[in-house]
Amino acid sequence: MTTDEREIAELTRLVREFATERDWQQFHDPKSVILALVGEVGELAELFQWVRADDAIATFAVPERKARAGEEMADVLIYLVCLADVLGVDLGAAARAKLAASHVRFAADEVRGRAPDKP
Amino acid sequence: MTTDEREIAELTRLVREFATERDWQQFHDPKSVILALVGEVGELAELFQWVRADDAIATFAVPERKARAGEEMADVLIYLVCLADVLGVDLGAAARAKLAASHVRFAADEVRGRAPDKP
Amino acid sequence: MTTDEREIAELTRLVREFATERDWQQFHDPKSVILALVGEVGELAELFQWVRADDAIATFAVPERKARAGEEMADVLIYLVCLADVLGVDLGAAARAKLAASHVRFAADEVRGRAPDKP
Amino acid sequence: MTTDEREIAELTRLVREFATERDWQQFHDPKSVILALVGEVGELAELFQWVRADDAIATFAVPERKARAGEEMADVLIYLVCLADVLGVDLGAAARAKLAASHVRFAADEVRGRAPDKP
Repeated sequence: MTTDEREIAELTRLVREFATERDWQQFHDPKSVILALVGEVGELAELFQWVRADDAIATFAVPERKARAGEEMADVLIYLVCLADVLGVDLGAAARAKLAASHVRFAADEVRGRAPDKP
Repeated sequence: MTTDEREIAELTRLVREFATERDWQQFHDPKSVILALVGEVGELAELFQWVRADDAIATFAVPERKARAGEEMADVLIYLVCLADVLGVDLGAAARAKLAASHVRFAADEVRGRAPDKP
Repeated sequence: MTTDEREIAELTRLVREFATERDWQQFHDPKSVILALVGEVGELAELFQWVRADDAIATFAVPERKARAGEEMADVLIYLVCLADVLGVDLGAAARAKLAASHVRFAADEVRGRAPDKP
Repeated sequence: MTTDEREIAELTRLVREFATERDWQQFHDPKSVILALVGEVGELAELFQWVRADDAIATFAVPERKARAGEEMADVLIYLVCLADVLGVDLGAAARAKLAASHVRFAADEVRGRAPDKP
């Protein structure tokens, strides 16, 4: 029964089952999984590299391109979920905690309209 | 009411609210968000770069290190969710579809114990 | 005597001396160095992430910003040179060979004005 | 006459000529070139991701694998040189300056045998 299973826990279970069935957990030490994540981020970057910044949303609104971008993003998520599982990190909880901390760190009234890291 | 909201949709809503309150959506064209994602992946990589592969899980089992890794992974997830929102991609559905396709592409009986991309 | 030493060989020698003096070669297995390279690429990406594409060259023409970008690019080059040294790759020769192959692969008359990987 | 041309300047000239002949400079704004660099770093990471850390040097001592790694590293260098050219950064000088600064920042007697960023 997975009625109450949350979505990232479900993905974690699916990713773990996929690896276990193939005896691939042996490859999933953290540094290797991060390199795999980097590989997928690279494929995502390649999709967008030569598209003009102003055209990127329109270009990827075309269904087959959106699907392609979705696949690369899926790969990034899958390796991120895999890494979290290997390290015992609760990824969803970590993201919610980070967002809560960012609400405090970047007070809306102080930073409105200005990117904090802009040179 | 968000009773039935799934976890990634909830994160998407939180990330969007965070950006909207700060008028930061103006910075979130796809190429910029991908560069931000790359920045966070870089911070994650830096955490692990000099740790021996065999020691990585034990090293990051220490609570403060696990929390630190969780924060960097959270940042990666947040920008990935942000990118998916900007592009109109359903990230959870894309990940489940990719895993389903991978089950077909990498038949367990054929690939067991062998990483497919290993040189 | 290094009179005839080429520039990348000189950098390689400097990077190797730096690591040797600190007994840091022990950390420089290829996967670790690639993760360090990823970390530096991430810092470079962070510098540019929220700058508008059209403003990036002007923004980084300001001396202190140009110097900062140069430092991050230097770090990327240093780890790339380190990796090449660890693997016994002649980086300059590899780059010249790749450019020569690209001249053949992308005939100027056929690809002029069109990015080859553009979706 | 390029008799006294240093190696990175030569590469810069070759990369610029290659782009100019194809009218590809129009695509080479800094953010786009960084995304292309990220794509190549991703391909490099993919080569090594599932190789055991202890086996990586031996695995890539095999000539065709070393050549493959060299090609991916060449691509990284080419885009780094392209970015430096676009930004007007002297990449070789920046790397030498960074190494000189690191000699001061990481005094050999103080850091010997300990990676500075190790968690």
